[in-house]
Amino acid sequence: MPDQVLDDISHRRYNPLTGSWLLVSPHRTKRPWQGQQEAPSKNVLPEYDPKCYLCPGNQRAQGDSNPQYKNTFTFVNDYSAVKEQQQEYKPETNKDDVASLLLQAQPVTGRCYVLTFSPKHDITLADMAAADILPVIQTWTRIYGSHLSATHPLKAQAEKTLALIPANPDGEVDPPASQLRYMQIFENKGAAMGCSNPHPHCQVWTTSTLPEEPGKELAQMGKYRAENGGRHLLADYAQLEMEKQERVVWQNEAFLVVCPWWAVWPFEVIIIAKRHVRALVDLTDGERLQFAEAVQEVTRRYDNLFETSFPYSSGIHQAPLDCTEEEAETSWFHMHFYPPLLRSATVRKFLVGYELMAEPQRDITPEQAAARLRDCGGELYRKLLK
Amino acid sequence: MPDQVLDDISHRRYNPLTGSWLLVSPHRTKRPWQGQQEAPSKNVLPEYDPKCYLCPGNQRAQGDSNPQYKNTFTFVNDYSAVKEQQQEYKPETNKDDVASLLLQAQPVTGRCYVLTFSPKHDITLADMAAADILPVIQTWTRIYGSHLSATHPLKAQAEKTLALIPANPDGEVDPPASQLRYMQIFENKGAAMGCSNPHPHCQVWTTSTLPEEPGKELAQMGKYRAENGGRHLLADYAQLEMEKQERVVWQNEAFLVVCPWWAVWPFEVIIIAKRHVRALVDLTDGERLQFAEAVQEVTRRYDNLFETSFPYSSGIHQAPLDCTEEEAETSWFHMHFYPPLLRSATVRKFLVGYELMAEPQRDITPEQAAARLRDCGGELYRKLLK
Ligand SMILES: O=P(O)(O)O[C@H]1O[C@H](CO)[C@@H](O)[C@H](O)[C@H]1O
Ligand SMILES: O=P(O)(O)O[C@H]1O[C@H](CO)[C@@H](O)[C@H](O)[C@H]1O
Repeated sequence: MPDQVLDDISHRRYNPLTGSWLLVSPHRTKRPWQGQQEAPSKNVLPEYDPKCYLCPGNQRAQGDSNPQYKNTFTFVNDYSAVKEQQQEYKPETNKDDVASLLLQAQPVTGRCYVLTFSPKHDITLADMAAADILPVIQTWTRIYGSHLSATHPLKAQAEKTLALIPANPDGEVDPPASQLRYMQIFENKGAAMGCSNPHPHCQVWTTSTLPEEPGKELAQMGKYRAENGGRHLLADYAQLEMEKQERVVWQNEAFLVVCPWWAVWPFEVIIIAKRHVRALVDLTDGERLQFAEAVQEVTRRYDNLFETSFPYSSGIHQAPLDCTEEEAETSWFHMHFYPPLLRSATVRKFLVGYELMAEPQRDITPEQAAARLRDCGGELYRKLLK
Repeated sequence: MPDQVLDDISHRRYNPLTGSWLLVSPHRTKRPWQGQQEAPSKNVLPEYDPKCYLCPGNQRAQGDSNPQYKNTFTFVNDYSAVKEQQQEYKPETNKDDVASLLLQAQPVTGRCYVLTFSPKHDITLADMAAADILPVIQTWTRIYGSHLSATHPLKAQAEKTLALIPANPDGEVDPPASQLRYMQIFENKGAAMGCSNPHPHCQVWTTSTLPEEPGKELAQMGKYRAENGGRHLLADYAQLEMEKQERVVWQNEAFLVVCPWWAVWPFEVIIIAKRHVRALVDLTDGERLQFAEAVQEVTRRYDNLFETSFPYSSGIHQAPLDCTEEEAETSWFHMHFYPPLLRSATVRKFLVGYELMAEPQRDITPEQAAARLRDCGGELYRKLLK
């Protein structure tokens, strides 16, 4: 097995999803750390915080009041990064002009949502049972499905799926008047990941443009299909990982959880659908619960790893809201988790100078990370402390 | 002037150096911030710290002692990310095999240096006069020049330049036995940027491979030349910025400092050589001092902006150590500064969920950032306080 050598030597690994390389230096974990220490999250939050703008019944920054919601609650972000209405901008397009090559801009419209996971202020996905995470996934599915374009290849499938998911008056939102191109569901968890409110929530930004990362992935997955007789990159990859078992953290029938070969963040994982799921609306009832289980397993293992509320950013990649048959067919549902902690609850990995100027660099190998995450299943550490 | 609209609307801008887009949301700076606050650096460092592994005369982690150096001191990092000697790794290359497509790795060798800017523990580039920064640039130039391949297109130029720069026994290092491909000079300044020792220093990582970022830039600059009759991207860009004056922060005869059109970090700047400088060894005596002035202007303005020791990562991009005539010709010397602070000494911009999963997003525009940086020249605020 030649890969054994990679435990000891510096090497680069290729990320086929983005078409880029990263540097792996396994021996670097031996160096002492005298730099910044993160403040470990103090677990003394109340179940209800009268000052929290996400708790049920409370008033938000711009005056609206939250309903007494039961599980999820969805609203338009009071400080959205993109808006539905704005002044028009038509860039000049004189192709012979240097400025039109080097000072390129495009207007972006869209709508940003905030979506709570629970009325309880003091819990996280790691504390929630899969059955309690299910309503979150149902809400994601309904929002995604209701924002699809009229001519979307998944439109009929979405209608069938949405008919089966119970409506949630606090989770529903009407799509904007003009059709948007992409929906990015993501969570920033923990102060270290820029999260400014511990109340469990995620964000959903929908834009008139296809953002860089899902755009790159679609292009790479399309190229792979074209060059490999229509086979799917993530299908082949999941199959390979199930055979090798070196980077698998956990799996059920529908989903595989691995530390990917090309992981940049120390304990990065990816949840990959085992069959060809193009987007949330493709999931069956049973698969939605299995997806909730996968999310539960990842977040609980993260917390157990350093016995802390583990910070991360996570995000779902799936078919665009408005897309061609080809793009929908090329899409393969998956979820990324990027956590910054490296050695303990207080020592993180900084992706800074070399990483920003030259190339991402990691210390422990994904195989070592996967082994550690495999070993920390079981009850959530906080429950055992009680 | 149509660009005025961009002050108010959400839009994307194109980075021609990397070929990617970013999202700009100028109105987002209005949102209140309740998240993590950075600890402002407390300026109570001693000029000499007996526990610092970079101060003159002190002993380092692996036992070596530092000389009583006068300005810069260069040594091989005790915990290098890449090494000269390691076990061999020959990846299997069966092109029909899924594993050889999806689990690609390459060995990387190289050498990592640490390079101090001054014997004084308690200063930064912002505190140093251009004349005191000059020896740092001389050391960078000598290290770069001495690591060029024997057949490098800049070899003859390097020999001429190195003969004119006074040798510094504490700044010199012999290149490794086997030729390396690229040298990345970078600085992580401040705890927020993962710096674990405030003693003023940078790092120099040299590798057998061309890293992602300079690789992307070379490809994009090459493409621009090919498509625009041999003109240089950064030449055209610098010219354009000098005409527009909207994003210019400062300039002297040889260098232009701008907040680039495509800046991701709030107060990101780029120092661009005005004439075709391919690498450090192309600079004349006078230009080296002018480069020192530019670095001084950037770092002093940064500190003045929020009256704090401003954190950043910076890095120099130039011709590879081992390269073709074409690559050398395409290279255009420049230096990036990526600082995380957004609103004050304690509130930073987090590049997290949306940025990692979808696309980089910024709040204030580069034009607004440039105006603020233009306005905070003058004495270093700390000197005025004394
Ligand atoms: O300066 P150090 O301690 O070598 O390390 C710092 O810079 C490196 C290069 O950007 C990063 O990989 C580390 O995460 C960071 O802590
Ligand atoms: O959750 P917030 O407050 O909207 O903001 C957070 O997530 C955004 C999207 O990743 C980032 O742009 C912000 O820098 C971060 O603080």
